[in-house]
Amino acid sequence: MNFVLKGDICWSHDAQHLNTIKDGFLVCEGGIVTGVFKNLPEKYAGLPVEDYSGKLIVPGLTDLHIHAPQYVFRGMKMDLELLEWLNTSAFPEEAKYQDTEYARRAYRIFVDDLRKSGTTRCCMFATLHLPATKVLMELLEESGQISYVGKVNMDRNSPDYLCEESAEASAEATVQWLAETGKAFPRTKPILTPRFIPSCSDELMERLAAIQKEYNLPVQSHLSENHGEISWVQELVPESRFYGDAYDRVGLFGGNVPTIMAHCVHSGEEETELMKKRGVYIAHCPQSNTNLMSGIAPVRTYLEKEIPMGLGSDVAGGAVLSIFRAMADAIQVSKLRAVLVDHNLKPLTMAEAFFLGTKGGGSFFGKVGSFDAGYECDALVLDEGKIPYPQELTIEERLERFIYLSGNDDILHKFVKGRRLF
Amino acid sequence: MNFVLKGDICWSHDAQHLNTIKDGFLVCEGGIVTGVFKNLPEKYAGLPVEDYSGKLIVPGLTDLHIHAPQYVFRGMKMDLELLEWLNTSAFPEEAKYQDTEYARRAYRIFVDDLRKSGTTRCCMFATLHLPATKVLMELLEESGQISYVGKVNMDRNSPDYLCEESAEASAEATVQWLAETGKAFPRTKPILTPRFIPSCSDELMERLAAIQKEYNLPVQSHLSENHGEISWVQELVPESRFYGDAYDRVGLFGGNVPTIMAHCVHSGEEETELMKKRGVYIAHCPQSNTNLMSGIAPVRTYLEKEIPMGLGSDVAGGAVLSIFRAMADAIQVSKLRAVLVDHNLKPLTMAEAFFLGTKGGGSFFGKVGSFDAGYECDALVLDEGKIPYPQELTIEERLERFIYLSGNDDILHKFVKGRRLF
Repeated sequence: MNFVLKGDICWSHDAQHLNTIKDGFLVCEGGIVTGVFKNLPEKYAGLPVEDYSGKLIVPGLTDLHIHAPQYVFRGMKMDLELLEWLNTSAFPEEAKYQDTEYARRAYRIFVDDLRKSGTTRCCMFATLHLPATKVLMELLEESGQISYVGKVNMDRNSPDYLCEESAEASAEATVQWLAETGKAFPRTKPILTPRFIPSCSDELMERLAAIQKEYNLPVQSHLSENHGEISWVQELVPESRFYGDAYDRVGLFGGNVPTIMAHCVHSGEEETELMKKRGVYIAHCPQSNTNLMSGIAPVRTYLEKEIPMGLGSDVAGGAVLSIFRAMADAIQVSKLRAVLVDHNLKPLTMAEAFFLGTKGGGSFFGKVGSFDAGYECDALVLDEGKIPYPQELTIEERLERFIYLSGNDDILHKFVKGRRLF
Repeated sequence: MNFVLKGDICWSHDAQHLNTIKDGFLVCEGGIVTGVFKNLPEKYAGLPVEDYSGKLIVPGLTDLHIHAPQYVFRGMKMDLELLEWLNTSAFPEEAKYQDTEYARRAYRIFVDDLRKSGTTRCCMFATLHLPATKVLMELLEESGQISYVGKVNMDRNSPDYLCEESAEASAEATVQWLAETGKAFPRTKPILTPRFIPSCSDELMERLAAIQKEYNLPVQSHLSENHGEISWVQELVPESRFYGDAYDRVGLFGGNVPTIMAHCVHSGEEETELMKKRGVYIAHCPQSNTNLMSGIAPVRTYLEKEIPMGLGSDVAGGAVLSIFRAMADAIQVSKLRAVLVDHNLKPLTMAEAFFLGTKGGGSFFGKVGSFDAGYECDALVLDEGKIPYPQELTIEERLERFIYLSGNDDILHKFVKGRRLF
């Protein structure tokens, strides 16, 4: 686990600054980054060097929000509106995971592609089905990725064929799932996953809050994705002051509970302040918010308030797994927001988008997503072979092209916590 | 040149309807589509059949607007605003094509990638340099693509290092270029290319109009891309009623002159009506308009008015060469426009975007971009190998995923006017 990577190294220290070292040395000891050096210090001279001279080396990427069962139907029926899409595509497809053999075939495709991708850390929704969720966790564990996986809870406002019988049944299934998987996998951990307020009864939310405390689990859900959903939550939880408050009232909105809320496209001032106060992570999912016509999240505002934030592919609201693509999408929609909605919110820069996809989201997993000393060594060696160029380019320029132009299989080597996957 | 393609065939007859035939037969005779059949008629039984059973077969794509010299610096410096980007990136890079050997290396990369892509027809800007433009035309001709190439005219408001000396010099160079290349290539034809009104003096525009008449050339330029540019044109040509009128006054705005205008993001009612009246083609470039913060063109309006229209990658305002990606981009920005700007303009459907990228733009080249009988046989056999799926899918669903998920090298076979390129 002690080694040196040599190459053109690039990482974020903070959202504004990109560090680059040409022909540098990244030292990894016991899975942890010791440092990045222009010249290799004498004391590391004995370590084996993997020489990737001329190649870009960047931190592994984090996907803070994806629906694993939706991977195999991504990029389809995208002409439909959200509710029609859920009812004719997402829900019927998710119901298929009742069949564990189907689940194994479909999740195999997802995990193989995830492994090939630049993503080293991932927080994902499975379905409500226990056996299928276990299959997903087994496949992920084998793959060498590090993940949080959520068996989904949903006991109301869902089609009969994809709805748990009662709050009690949903809670019991969750406890059983935790018993079976909570300590089974070193790299693959459970995360509590109420689908969203409309599909979880008050009783279920209370039971899940109790389970959260007992097992000390992190939490993921959805927040303020579109206007119809926000009004619906107000009707369902009339005593809530805003959508996020409906989670907060039961104690599932950050604070001591590590929490990810996906989307936050239409979060108001109060909700935004509470996210900041509670340290709730925002999973910004630009492509999904475009495809489902939700709108464009005010990411500049969240960055300025220093709310913890990362990127999500949100497959299958988003069609594309790559977090490099999510960076480009985030920049692009922020430009359209600046032009069409609010000239005062400056578009994201490339450095900021890269930060969100690496250190920003990675920090949900601890010291992850950077090559600062003490960080867990998730690293990618990039393959620029498909995008040749005739001129001299800087490391920043090469990284920027890669963000805009790379595909899912343009990763040459991948390290997770100091372990080489390929 | 007489053969049959067998596979899952999909093409547009008009913007609303996608035709699909599973296990169908596409008959090509002398480079022209005879028809698509569910069962192969007896009289074609003697033709050789290329069997691509299980694979999607679609018409070749048309890129109505791309800057060939900008290909090798696509996806870089995208954090800059348009004018800064032109001055620090586009103009200095284009100036390098003064060096014909550099041009050959850079254009080789472009033409190789274009050949591998789904694009069979392309209208492109070169630079103002004659020898480099000839090199580009030679490489394109060898590649088997069918293209229009424009030596760029620009005699004002351009940096010294990338500006022609006078209107007369620019016109003379154009005549010389036409003499050298006008009849030199069966597949690669010149197109008159004033860069845009701000970089062409009144005298130059008049000289170009005379050349257009003498040589009966098609024309391409830019129109109403952003507000600053529109005001600038108004200052430069104070007698013009709107931007398009500045072209129209010299006779370079459609009518008997086949004309493409790129962008049309902010065309007003009069300009739109004149485009319709004159049959001016709009090259819709959604990714470029996003990257350069120009805005989102009202494509639904143009479709309803039946103005001829196709898609443009507009590399390097756009970063991505693929016209499949341009289809996805067009759908996505149309959704954001519907949400953020104008709820009355319904987003583009997949079928409409596919039409624009095939028959819509292809019609600039004649009967191109469809498998309707009598069309020139440009065809692609698609490689879905990188996007496996565990369920049954319809042809429409497979095409939609391909639009959202394919990369530039996912074309298995490519035919241009009945000739197989690979």
